[in-house]
Amino acid sequence: MAVKDFFPEKIFDQEIIELVDSRQSNTLQTVFEDLYPADVAAIIDELENTEDKIYVISLIDDSEMLLDVFEELEWDDQYEVINSLKNKKLVSFILNEMASDDRADFFATLKDENAKILRENLHPEEKKDLDSLLKYGEFTAGGLMTTDYVGLKTNITVEQALQMLREKYQEAETIYYEFVVDDTNRLQGIVSLRDIIVSEPGALLKDIMETNTLYAHTGMDQEEVASLFIKYDLTVIPVLDVAGVLKGIITIDDILDVIEEEATEDIQRIGASLPLEESYFDTSIRELIKKRFIWLVGLLVVSAFTANVLKIYNGTLKVLLPLSYFIPTITGTGGNTGTQSATMIIRGIALGEIEYKDIFRVLRREFTIGLLMGLMLAVLGFLQSFITAQVVEVSLTLAISLVFTTIASACIGGTLPVIAKKLKFDPAVMSGPFISTVVDVGGLIIYFETANFILNHVGMNI
Amino acid sequence: MAVKDFFPEKIFDQEIIELVDSRQSNTLQTVFEDLYPADVAAIIDELENTEDKIYVISLIDDSEMLLDVFEELEWDDQYEVINSLKNKKLVSFILNEMASDDRADFFATLKDENAKILRENLHPEEKKDLDSLLKYGEFTAGGLMTTDYVGLKTNITVEQALQMLREKYQEAETIYYEFVVDDTNRLQGIVSLRDIIVSEPGALLKDIMETNTLYAHTGMDQEEVASLFIKYDLTVIPVLDVAGVLKGIITIDDILDVIEEEATEDIQRIGASLPLEESYFDTSIRELIKKRFIWLVGLLVVSAFTANVLKIYNGTLKVLLPLSYFIPTITGTGGNTGTQSATMIIRGIALGEIEYKDIFRVLRREFTIGLLMGLMLAVLGFLQSFITAQVVEVSLTLAISLVFTTIASACIGGTLPVIAKKLKFDPAVMSGPFISTVVDVGGLIIYFETANFILNHVGMNI
Repeated sequence: MAVKDFFPEKIFDQEIIELVDSRQSNTLQTVFEDLYPADVAAIIDELENTEDKIYVISLIDDSEMLLDVFEELEWDDQYEVINSLKNKKLVSFILNEMASDDRADFFATLKDENAKILRENLHPEEKKDLDSLLKYGEFTAGGLMTTDYVGLKTNITVEQALQMLREKYQEAETIYYEFVVDDTNRLQGIVSLRDIIVSEPGALLKDIMETNTLYAHTGMDQEEVASLFIKYDLTVIPVLDVAGVLKGIITIDDILDVIEEEATEDIQRIGASLPLEESYFDTSIRELIKKRFIWLVGLLVVSAFTANVLKIYNGTLKVLLPLSYFIPTITGTGGNTGTQSATMIIRGIALGEIEYKDIFRVLRREFTIGLLMGLMLAVLGFLQSFITAQVVEVSLTLAISLVFTTIASACIGGTLPVIAKKLKFDPAVMSGPFISTVVDVGGLIIYFETANFILNHVGMNI
Repeated sequence: MAVKDFFPEKIFDQEIIELVDSRQSNTLQTVFEDLYPADVAAIIDELENTEDKIYVISLIDDSEMLLDVFEELEWDDQYEVINSLKNKKLVSFILNEMASDDRADFFATLKDENAKILRENLHPEEKKDLDSLLKYGEFTAGGLMTTDYVGLKTNITVEQALQMLREKYQEAETIYYEFVVDDTNRLQGIVSLRDIIVSEPGALLKDIMETNTLYAHTGMDQEEVASLFIKYDLTVIPVLDVAGVLKGIITIDDILDVIEEEATEDIQRIGASLPLEESYFDTSIRELIKKRFIWLVGLLVVSAFTANVLKIYNGTLKVLLPLSYFIPTITGTGGNTGTQSATMIIRGIALGEIEYKDIFRVLRREFTIGLLMGLMLAVLGFLQSFITAQVVEVSLTLAISLVFTTIASACIGGTLPVIAKKLKFDPAVMSGPFISTVVDVGGLIIYFETANFILNHVGMNI
């Protein structure tokens, strides 16, 4: 077998880090020969101190490999590497030769003064390219695209196209799709390399190109671009300005990152925090607190409502203190039911399966689900509370209010995200903890009203 | 501009559905000419009754287009279409010509007796292919792969390879990567179409192929395969058996689906339900209740602990009833803090950023975050509770216990998912609601112990 075995990867990483610690340059260089750029980048990411990172970089003597590794690094590692490289020619080589989208991302994160200094390394053409990319919003198609595409004119032949591909293939992000443009660079169609190799050498591109082609606008949200890739099984999409001029292309590797990012954001919102911009360990404690604290404060303020509900019913509590034992049971069940509904609907909205017009369908389903689950929980809740407190009025109160709380929570949890979406908020904002808190208040009112009813009408025999 | 404008998509869909309702065949056929197969499939999915779906299918007179649309349909729509097609030749055409991975997915979901009947439409070679794919687990590389790849022998020339591609391109899922094999179909390397077109026509594949190539084993988990695509920016990967024999390939379009599925599962687990197998509306109410109820029952059972904690402290409650007002505040804050920590760590684990060896680093960070947030919440909690209850002992109790509860919740929420992962459970099982319930018990004990301490040592002056 000639193919490489990558399965014992993790152990492998640890061994390499030990080799780095003991500066075994020769062994490391041999090991690196079998690794992919992404592997070397992962090792550099694992290393804790800058010196070790620089040392590893210094072992890569092939400048093409260095470029590939650099492109795979996290932003902070890229910055450290660029700043510590003694060989200024190499710095210039990396900055000029890196993929235009990666370069724009790198410069976008630099502080102004640093960007200004490093910018001096760029050739005039790359400077222009960088400036044109930096003007687009970070989360738009323009911010995601690369200018490293193959643009061909409509009236050239298949043979001429092949010849141009042979010349340009190293600069392009992909040569499997060629973008056919007119003299003002307006997109006319797309030709795949597959079409080129199966066509007659003398055929003109304009006769074999696909004209009914999908595209993105420069200002289009990256999430929308990702949906196009998923829906139409794309691997690349052209990006046009309002005049139809081809400004760049987006390839699927960048879309994979977008899909992961968006899922992470939704998950973090559901988990009651503002989305982080970087990974957990790359985010400072200060930043983590900022993203989390605002939620907790909000929820603490809202809990003034539950406190006041309980204060209002303190007469009932005084008469029947064991009612207090099941306050967490009521709020917990309501909160969990609401969270379940909200999460399913939030995800359904994100995947495009649920829209505003479905709101009554959601409500009907959640009502039925809440009712059936509530009835079953009531039986269990009655038994469990009777074992703990041995007061039949309390168990009856809990059982009855579990039914109503579960129904209300499911309906609220299911519909609020749909309403949020309609009002152009992110549905994930209506996440579990928010719903829980809303539902807590409702659940407690149901609980104590039921208790009062039972105390007044069913009779007391404690 | 020759390119198609797809932005007013939603309105468009609605108009088409009206055309279907009024059976405007001619207009619909004209509209369909501009649509992609995925668009037509989306329209069929939107239609509520089978008759309409079949009607739309009957309008597609090009069998290649019909095949493409069929491949994009949801499983239940595929089944309805196949069963209602009068033209048996067309049924046979679709089943034989569809992509081998899509065909295997379709047959895998059929009931045994239906599979047996439809299987009779397949040619012997397709039957063999289907059986070979069906034996792999649904969530493995084998279950994901297609057998529609281009395999070439090591000793053919670039020119011969190009000739073979021109003959085979219609059957292959991709011709941008060719898989070079020996006489027993064992993988020797990969050649990209790019390498082929830039090489000399007389060069041998074995001299230009990339031998240091990544691959997946047939039994590899689909999530692991997806990580390889993300890490190495792949668009295709070969799948080998233990002997190194090439069994199929996986292309990136299927990986996009895997990434979306896995994110959905994690989100649903965090939202306190077992993952659904289908979309919200395609899941029956019975199934939804099954996936959700088990969680609620578990949490209700666990809430016996909170009830008993409160029962144990009922003496304290009797003396100072306003303590009960802030039970939801304590459990809510603890639960939300724990959920925040758990969610971030669960996602970090899923993205490969956090491992078991990081557990103490997580603990240190969460302790610091919990302490700082707890101190700030204590100030707010003191003020808020004093406004509501006007009992300084209660506010003091709440403030002090908020600090300890926040620390404990952050630490528990941060470390339990890491421990779950180490014990080979899905970390998402340690999701918000589970953590909340664990933390509720701890929070209440802290709250009442603090209250007792204050009542005994600081003195009472109500």
